[in-house]
Amino acid sequence: MASWKTYLETNQDRYLKELLEFLSIPSVSSLQAHKADVQKAAEWVAARLQAAGLENVQVLPTGGHPVVYGDWLHVPDKPTVMIYGHFDTQPVDPLELWSQPPFEPVVEEERVYARGASDDKGNMLAPILALEAVLNSKGKLPVNVKCFFEGQEEIGSPQLPEFISANRGLLACDLIFSADGGQWDEDQPALMLALRGLCALQVDVQAARSDTHSGTFGGTIMNPIHALVHLLDSMHTSQGKVAVEGFYDAVRPLSDIEQARIAEIPYDESDYKAQLGVDELFGEPGYSTYERAWTRPTLEVNGIWGGFQDEGFKTVLPSTAHAKISCRLVPDQDPQEIVERVTAHTHKHAPSGVTVKVQPDPSTAYPYVIPHDHPGNRIARSVHQALFGKEPYYARMGGSIPVCGILLKELGVYTVNFAFGLKDEHVHGPNEFFRLKSFSRAQLAYGMLLERLSEWEIK
Amino acid sequence: MASWKTYLETNQDRYLKELLEFLSIPSVSSLQAHKADVQKAAEWVAARLQAAGLENVQVLPTGGHPVVYGDWLHVPDKPTVMIYGHFDTQPVDPLELWSQPPFEPVVEEERVYARGASDDKGNMLAPILALEAVLNSKGKLPVNVKCFFEGQEEIGSPQLPEFISANRGLLACDLIFSADGGQWDEDQPALMLALRGLCALQVDVQAARSDTHSGTFGGTIMNPIHALVHLLDSMHTSQGKVAVEGFYDAVRPLSDIEQARIAEIPYDESDYKAQLGVDELFGEPGYSTYERAWTRPTLEVNGIWGGFQDEGFKTVLPSTAHAKISCRLVPDQDPQEIVERVTAHTHKHAPSGVTVKVQPDPSTAYPYVIPHDHPGNRIARSVHQALFGKEPYYARMGGSIPVCGILLKELGVYTVNFAFGLKDEHVHGPNEFFRLKSFSRAQLAYGMLLERLSEWEIK
Repeated sequence: MASWKTYLETNQDRYLKELLEFLSIPSVSSLQAHKADVQKAAEWVAARLQAAGLENVQVLPTGGHPVVYGDWLHVPDKPTVMIYGHFDTQPVDPLELWSQPPFEPVVEEERVYARGASDDKGNMLAPILALEAVLNSKGKLPVNVKCFFEGQEEIGSPQLPEFISANRGLLACDLIFSADGGQWDEDQPALMLALRGLCALQVDVQAARSDTHSGTFGGTIMNPIHALVHLLDSMHTSQGKVAVEGFYDAVRPLSDIEQARIAEIPYDESDYKAQLGVDELFGEPGYSTYERAWTRPTLEVNGIWGGFQDEGFKTVLPSTAHAKISCRLVPDQDPQEIVERVTAHTHKHAPSGVTVKVQPDPSTAYPYVIPHDHPGNRIARSVHQALFGKEPYYARMGGSIPVCGILLKELGVYTVNFAFGLKDEHVHGPNEFFRLKSFSRAQLAYGMLLERLSEWEIK
Repeated sequence: MASWKTYLETNQDRYLKELLEFLSIPSVSSLQAHKADVQKAAEWVAARLQAAGLENVQVLPTGGHPVVYGDWLHVPDKPTVMIYGHFDTQPVDPLELWSQPPFEPVVEEERVYARGASDDKGNMLAPILALEAVLNSKGKLPVNVKCFFEGQEEIGSPQLPEFISANRGLLACDLIFSADGGQWDEDQPALMLALRGLCALQVDVQAARSDTHSGTFGGTIMNPIHALVHLLDSMHTSQGKVAVEGFYDAVRPLSDIEQARIAEIPYDESDYKAQLGVDELFGEPGYSTYERAWTRPTLEVNGIWGGFQDEGFKTVLPSTAHAKISCRLVPDQDPQEIVERVTAHTHKHAPSGVTVKVQPDPSTAYPYVIPHDHPGNRIARSVHQALFGKEPYYARMGGSIPVCGILLKELGVYTVNFAFGLKDEHVHGPNEFFRLKSFSRAQLAYGMLLERLSEWEIK
């Protein structure tokens, strides 16, 4: 019987084909039109778990997009480890900026280009393949494993809290590893100690009943775009601080140790700028770039629209204008409270002559921090040391993975980031990609993780 | 031989059918995709002029959308009168707010609903029908007539100055009447003494090279939407004055007589608000509503867009954000100079961390004022008195008709507003309509105008 590493090596061509097949399912969770595709992706994942040798594989309804569960529980004296990931993707617009259709994956220069390649299909498929390799080469796993994959991460996992709460027994475990997240770079591992929280809302401004002629009425009524830009501009100081009253009230200052751990991570400003294609950075004064990205809350307008947006000019006085806003949150900000404060600010600063409505997104995420010396981090660190030949950085992530906070609350178990996405992979943007090198490294990493977990003693 | 009035009455059913046919041509001048439709509308107009009995009918190229010319010049001792109108239309978006497809006209409750019904196809068809009625009933016209219809009014008549300049002989005339414009209301005529000028520009803000993840990078670079809303908000004071430096420098104050003439026009604020569906008006302090709409310059954002605008939420940090801006101008503001001042303001207030580009629209319009006692206004007044049984108001229009300034400059002839659109007809918006009553009244009015013009002595 070949070793699990040999099994992985032998099957890389097939695994890549499977990844391309998985990526060709347009499982965009935010769009009703893709509801069936998210279901199709769930069924694909379930079939793949079954093929890998997992048991009790089920596509489970949640009231929204489904989750997929599968387990292998045959070593009662060993710990039970949950592996988490998500099979839904972000939307694809602006579509015109993609070099190829986002759900027709292509491989170029050792990279797979497609929506969801890095976030999270490439990452979440890797542990399934590692499980298959170990089961096929050894006939068993060294620990008990529960796979738990969801289809609503990109819309903030709205039905997940209730689902997890109702299925505590099914999901009970000793350790959780998340295959959604990333590493520092191709040569440098990192333990991700924190995620920012998230809340979002849409602001709708209405002026006249319908679009009117800017010649006939211009100058006599409030233009809803003027009202909206005034409102939105009032949400930041010119230095880049959020100007919403009470926004920073609950922010816990970084400890000296936390600050020092971030300062230890090398930072090259010209690399950072080059990666984004900007001449200048901009952010809240008094913090380093990493502190801003990981430890400070933000309020970003993610989208704005109103009036005429087509070729040429149309002298219209629009009837409505709209914006989508989201806030990234840090301990101990409460998403619900921040929504209330932004809503209050919006109503307080709404110019007269327009009606302003705020629609909060029901999905939110609490900010999340895991102790740096958590047992899961210690095991992940040892795998990274072996795999990269380097000590990992103790970093954080600016993004949000709602499930981490939910799992901690409902199951009392921390989630360890153990994923292999990289920062330059255009996650959430056009031309998203995943490195084939990261894909195979992730498989190897999960195989090694399983081996080392068997030596871990349940406390 | 029946009178021209009887001829008109007898042919109303046919004329309505022809209007519906004319309205079904989607001659949107701002969109390349409709270029052939604008040409088709020109050919439709030419055929209609021919059928009416006009001579020398030609569709003439301009380098952009064509113009249509036709004449009847058989009374050398009488004045030559030009009739102006346009056969192009505004775009139709937001399409979802139309009750029926905008180029599939329907008649409901004595109104024709379609894009261009009021602005300007219904209005410009009327004089052609009046000419046909007079020619058919009398065999000749009482004055010489030149018809001059354009296909680029809604994009600011970019090629018209050059065309008119190159065709001064063809277009030479003693008086010009414009079938593009309107009356006060169904029962009240008005002489329109002024039009505002126009200039427009697009502002493009670019931050990172491509859309990025608001979790990963949010807080470290300038969000182009934040930059844009800051820029746009800086263009107005909170009281509604334009805050662009030098914007009002060239504005000629209203004379006491001009102010008094506007104050004579009855104004009902609750009617005005009800018409628009707003609870409150908003505008520059120190001026009445009509003064704001007709005699004060404005800067309006006609459209804004950037980032995610679809259903749900997408936590993207967009790469770009855009706005379309237009200014309505009053004597003696120069459109080119205002474009320069808005451009300078834009660059001066552009936040750091983004690249800001300004694209001016090549089409502009000079503000236009005609003396209230101009001979054309005196004749129009006498027709209105006979037709409405009322003295017309001496009003103004807040809109812009570039050709008036161009014709004055190139031919030395003022253009008299003689059209029958009304303010509530959703011109430039969804569900544009034209009253059948206005359509037949306009035909009658042009017939009466022709009769009275024959008594006018060329000075």
